[in-house]
Amino acid sequence: MRPSGRQTDEMRSVTIEVGTTRHAEGSCLIKCGDTHVLCTASVDDRVPPFLKGTGLGWVTAEYGMLPRATHTRMRREAKNGQSGRTQEIQRLIGRSLRAGVDRVAMGERQIVVDCDVLQADGGTRCASITGGWVALKLAVNQLMKAGDIISDPLIDPVAAISCGIYAGQEVLDLDYPEDSEAGVDGNFILTGGKLVEIQMSAEGSTFTRAQMDKLLDLAEKGIGELNTVQRAAVT
Amino acid sequence: MRPSGRQTDEMRSVTIEVGTTRHAEGSCLIKCGDTHVLCTASVDDRVPPFLKGTGLGWVTAEYGMLPRATHTRMRREAKNGQSGRTQEIQRLIGRSLRAGVDRVAMGERQIVVDCDVLQADGGTRCASITGGWVALKLAVNQLMKAGDIISDPLIDPVAAISCGIYAGQEVLDLDYPEDSEAGVDGNFILTGGKLVEIQMSAEGSTFTRAQMDKLLDLAEKGIGELNTVQRAAVT
Amino acid sequence: MRPSGRQTDEMRSVTIEVGTTRHAEGSCLIKCGDTHVLCTASVDDRVPPFLKGTGLGWVTAEYGMLPRATHTRMRREAKNGQSGRTQEIQRLIGRSLRAGVDRVAMGERQIVVDCDVLQADGGTRCASITGGWVALKLAVNQLMKAGDIISDPLIDPVAAISCGIYAGQEVLDLDYPEDSEAGVDGNFILTGGKLVEIQMSAEGSTFTRAQMDKLLDLAEKGIGELNTVQRAAVT
Amino acid sequence: MRPSGRQTDEMRSVTIEVGTTRHAEGSCLIKCGDTHVLCTASVDDRVPPFLKGTGLGWVTAEYGMLPRATHTRMRREAKNGQSGRTQEIQRLIGRSLRAGVDRVAMGERQIVVDCDVLQADGGTRCASITGGWVALKLAVNQLMKAGDIISDPLIDPVAAISCGIYAGQEVLDLDYPEDSEAGVDGNFILTGGKLVEIQMSAEGSTFTRAQMDKLLDLAEKGIGELNTVQRAAVT
Amino acid sequence: MRPSGRQTDEMRSVTIEVGTTRHAEGSCLIKCGDTHVLCTASVDDRVPPFLKGTGLGWVTAEYGMLPRATHTRMRREAKNGQSGRTQEIQRLIGRSLRAGVDRVAMGERQIVVDCDVLQADGGTRCASITGGWVALKLAVNQLMKAGDIISDPLIDPVAAISCGIYAGQEVLDLDYPEDSEAGVDGNFILTGGKLVEIQMSAEGSTFTRAQMDKLLDLAEKGIGELNTVQRAAVT
Amino acid sequence: MRPSGRQTDEMRSVTIEVGTTRHAEGSCLIKCGDTHVLCTASVDDRVPPFLKGTGLGWVTAEYGMLPRATHTRMRREAKNGQSGRTQEIQRLIGRSLRAGVDRVAMGERQIVVDCDVLQADGGTRCASITGGWVALKLAVNQLMKAGDIISDPLIDPVAAISCGIYAGQEVLDLDYPEDSEAGVDGNFILTGGKLVEIQMSAEGSTFTRAQMDKLLDLAEKGIGELNTVQRAAVT
Repeated sequence: MRPSGRQTDEMRSVTIEVGTTRHAEGSCLIKCGDTHVLCTASVDDRVPPFLKGTGLGWVTAEYGMLPRATHTRMRREAKNGQSGRTQEIQRLIGRSLRAGVDRVAMGERQIVVDCDVLQADGGTRCASITGGWVALKLAVNQLMKAGDIISDPLIDPVAAISCGIYAGQEVLDLDYPEDSEAGVDGNFILTGGKLVEIQMSAEGSTFTRAQMDKLLDLAEKGIGELNTVQRAAVT
Repeated sequence: MRPSGRQTDEMRSVTIEVGTTRHAEGSCLIKCGDTHVLCTASVDDRVPPFLKGTGLGWVTAEYGMLPRATHTRMRREAKNGQSGRTQEIQRLIGRSLRAGVDRVAMGERQIVVDCDVLQADGGTRCASITGGWVALKLAVNQLMKAGDIISDPLIDPVAAISCGIYAGQEVLDLDYPEDSEAGVDGNFILTGGKLVEIQMSAEGSTFTRAQMDKLLDLAEKGIGELNTVQRAAVT
Repeated sequence: MRPSGRQTDEMRSVTIEVGTTRHAEGSCLIKCGDTHVLCTASVDDRVPPFLKGTGLGWVTAEYGMLPRATHTRMRREAKNGQSGRTQEIQRLIGRSLRAGVDRVAMGERQIVVDCDVLQADGGTRCASITGGWVALKLAVNQLMKAGDIISDPLIDPVAAISCGIYAGQEVLDLDYPEDSEAGVDGNFILTGGKLVEIQMSAEGSTFTRAQMDKLLDLAEKGIGELNTVQRAAVT
Repeated sequence: MRPSGRQTDEMRSVTIEVGTTRHAEGSCLIKCGDTHVLCTASVDDRVPPFLKGTGLGWVTAEYGMLPRATHTRMRREAKNGQSGRTQEIQRLIGRSLRAGVDRVAMGERQIVVDCDVLQADGGTRCASITGGWVALKLAVNQLMKAGDIISDPLIDPVAAISCGIYAGQEVLDLDYPEDSEAGVDGNFILTGGKLVEIQMSAEGSTFTRAQMDKLLDLAEKGIGELNTVQRAAVT
Repeated sequence: MRPSGRQTDEMRSVTIEVGTTRHAEGSCLIKCGDTHVLCTASVDDRVPPFLKGTGLGWVTAEYGMLPRATHTRMRREAKNGQSGRTQEIQRLIGRSLRAGVDRVAMGERQIVVDCDVLQADGGTRCASITGGWVALKLAVNQLMKAGDIISDPLIDPVAAISCGIYAGQEVLDLDYPEDSEAGVDGNFILTGGKLVEIQMSAEGSTFTRAQMDKLLDLAEKGIGELNTVQRAAVT
Repeated sequence: MRPSGRQTDEMRSVTIEVGTTRHAEGSCLIKCGDTHVLCTASVDDRVPPFLKGTGLGWVTAEYGMLPRATHTRMRREAKNGQSGRTQEIQRLIGRSLRAGVDRVAMGERQIVVDCDVLQADGGTRCASITGGWVALKLAVNQLMKAGDIISDPLIDPVAAISCGIYAGQEVLDLDYPEDSEAGVDGNFILTGGKLVEIQMSAEGSTFTRAQMDKLLDLAEKGIGELNTVQRAAVT
């Protein structure tokens, strides 16, 4: 049924290689099938102005795509400015990662997570969140080792997966050929078994609550598998 | 419980005044409590380049806020460019409205829906979708009257409502005081009793599937009431 | 003679509704015939850097037009930046309003007057000045009531009206059909019976000093009528 | 009385040197006292889109100032974009020059007049118009010599002069020390003895119709002297 | 002497891995010590406007750096626009690559070479040129295989290396610790044993012709070694 | 051979007129044949942030061209932003001038050198450096006269000249007709008989080390002549 031959509830193979960038406090290269995202976490002692003196930490994210990460070359955003889509994605990544952070335990510092897509085949924002959490955790581990943070501000991993309705069937982890055909698709972000964000969208279509329930079942299954890979990467 | 004294499943009063802008093919002023949005629909014979010669129509939306629509004055976007938030909202409005359009019946033309917030008190993107559909329908009615469109491309109204968890309780139609406190909130867009978009977001919090179900119940109730006001406005 | 059937020295009907925006310290909706402008005045305790520590106040203005305020839809300035025309208009509004302000009595604070055109039919900059003064005065009244300002810094209203030569005849208060045909037209801003600004412009034409005198006569008549409406609005 | 010791109705000395830029179809360096403006006129066979096929010509202007034309260095506009003031000035120059052009006789072509201030001491926009007309006329002369234009589209020179109220006295041709002190000042553009534009502005002051009349008298005197210098330059 | 312990004429180890990006017509990851650059070549049937109908090909380049490629995080250029340095580098890469192309044999098409620095340790522009040529050659090979190009437009490899004066000594291939200390450094681009570009620069220092000669000797040695790695990569 | 009839080692005539801008601390108009550049030096007591409190001075440069300095009119950079070429040139000018400055003797202040091309005929960046040094020196002289600087921070003049290979022949000081035809050309900046910058570039060509040597010979000859003119101008 699926172009890749996968089962409806079968994810692409996921690998996370850590320490890929020498200068960053935390870094990894996450590969979800042919979607490859380089994630780095940079620690900054300064926080945004609205947090100065509060003792609270902050996590923010930026997202980019190399011009030829895609099937046909895209215009370079450095020449044209960030598109609305890019801004929307990086706001989502930042919000999702913050949901898993104890900002008091983190202390008054900022960590910037950069997610740069080297190769795209669908699901880049989900891979960015899942890999971004790993980079963030590695940076936090370094701060804890150095004694700059005492109690771990990151308990449960944050992970994200896409689900959608392809050819009338609910499927897990859409790749590009599915994503470009699906009338309904969405992203589910969870931490510690609970929901953090849901973004369901139907372009030229609609969906029922029963379908929504099945998609949530698939998402919970996928997130469980991602958490296993994430935990292995950071220990 | 609620700052406004409303029941958990009680919407703010909604009124829609049509024909508010003399030049536009369709226009209305929607008031959801103290949130006031002026919506206009402008018909354009030209479609975006990717649709030329396809015979298909297009609906797009733009969103803005007057600088003093808010409690404290915001910087004017004309001087600073559209924020990521603004772009994200107008992309949502456009996508939602297109979900209710038969683009073949519409014919190869574009309708631009402008939603400008005159006064804000929470829920501006939902009011924009609900009012935007009315402006769109009025413009389509005019095209049908003129014989430019034969069969109505807009069958069921598209409407949107926010729900969230305020003080531990699921509530319908958050106003600004609730919105700024709620740990979890989201927007639900429906047409013809089916789902079009869901955007659930938890800033510094999480939510369960049981809570998600209750929010969907509230949303369905609210959308039913909005559809009644919409239908009255366009006939 | 005139498309509207008005006498050469007859203004359009003018109404000013106050308190139209709940959050603003001063607000009004001015309607000069089919030209409708929403004016708000926002008080800010900070002044521009060049006034810090001088004890002097400042009034500035910003101007905008909703995309479908006009006969055909204009591009949204938030997407494209403010045009030269927009900047020229808002500089004029700010300068004109400051001419009627005792900046010592006002104290070291800034008031920003936003003039947003909801519907345009000629004369939007004049309506913005006339209505902007009303919003400004209402904000000042609130500051005086609160004891933040002791002596009224606004004695005489500032008002503006257009005059021009249409079909060889000097006329008062041009509407859009006249404005787009007139070879010569201009804006006159007065306060307390004296001149503050004159902007006469002839596109593809010229005018004599005798004609200039007649236009000034018309302007003085019109401003008198506007002052009556302004005074009624602010008391 | 005046810082320069000039009489109230005495202009600064004015010289116009032509042919200052080798590549331009028309060029001159106008010096009004210490205000020096380099004006070039560039002929372009293409007209703006709204004139294509109409047979009508177009004249437009651009204005700039070298960063150290002023007492203290200004930020370079190429790095920051044109200010509102710059745009307002170049719109005025273009409009004024067009007032003296027979656009049918000119034929369907565009002439761009660039006015770049090498040294500023007040009155740069007036010097730009007066010198810009000379550059324009020289370019037209070249087109007539080449037979590209048959009948001269420029009959009377267009010239501009500032007048204002300095130390309570109406004065002609304000230099920078006067300009920065004057409560009322304005620019008068005339052609063939008739008015084309008036821009009177009072910052923190007002003026009477009697004063306006005296300023117009001064302007007419000054323009007459400028026309003599212009005519000498182009023959 | 050198921080890395290398001899004065010793390059860092260089590896080139090809086929690193699935979608691109040509791609490689070049590693010059700790400087890692991902290069892709994208074929486009359209040429820039000035080449339309000439039958000539075009090669252009774009350059970027991931925000955390560097020791401390840099601001993302997509948010701020390309810096002057970035533009200067990508103009150099494009010019250098074109020097090795027979644009007639290439045919009327464009190849865009993107060079994105994943990790920086000095010499990123040289690595971009050396790796960029490999990506370009792989894309050309694919076009030749498909019969779209008949005779090879790329005969000799183009390669680049930096040389400089570090601690009074001429050295080959500066890494970041050397680059940030060197008073004199430059980039040498060669093809087929001949010079294409030289960019020598002394910040706060000067150099003699004798030193220039020694730097050229070093450069020729280094380029020879790079050519060997390049040739191995593309066959 | 050469379009101008000059010998291969013959420069265009060079003149430098000083004191051309009344407000600037140092200024000159340099004419190298038909290339005319107005250079001003502006003293600023504030240094860039990275130099605060170091006691070191800074020299920076900005470069511009009037729109009709060229054969056909160019778009005004104030409307479109600085091109990559402009930024590259002004970075070169600043770097070159700093090479001749003792930044300790200069004291903690900044001098901004503006180079604005009034007429272009090839070699504008070289003329900017040569003339820019004169403006800089005049400003320094004024600071020394006022006692703000004790020991002269500018010992040897910095000058620049272009050389290239035109019609197979090495030539000195290319004018525009040569520059637009030359396959190889470059700029050589020297101070005190030593090299500061070399920028050699071959568009669609290559060059040998022997040719490079001859170009250096020509450059040294030309720079000697320029230094004589510079020294005469500043004393």
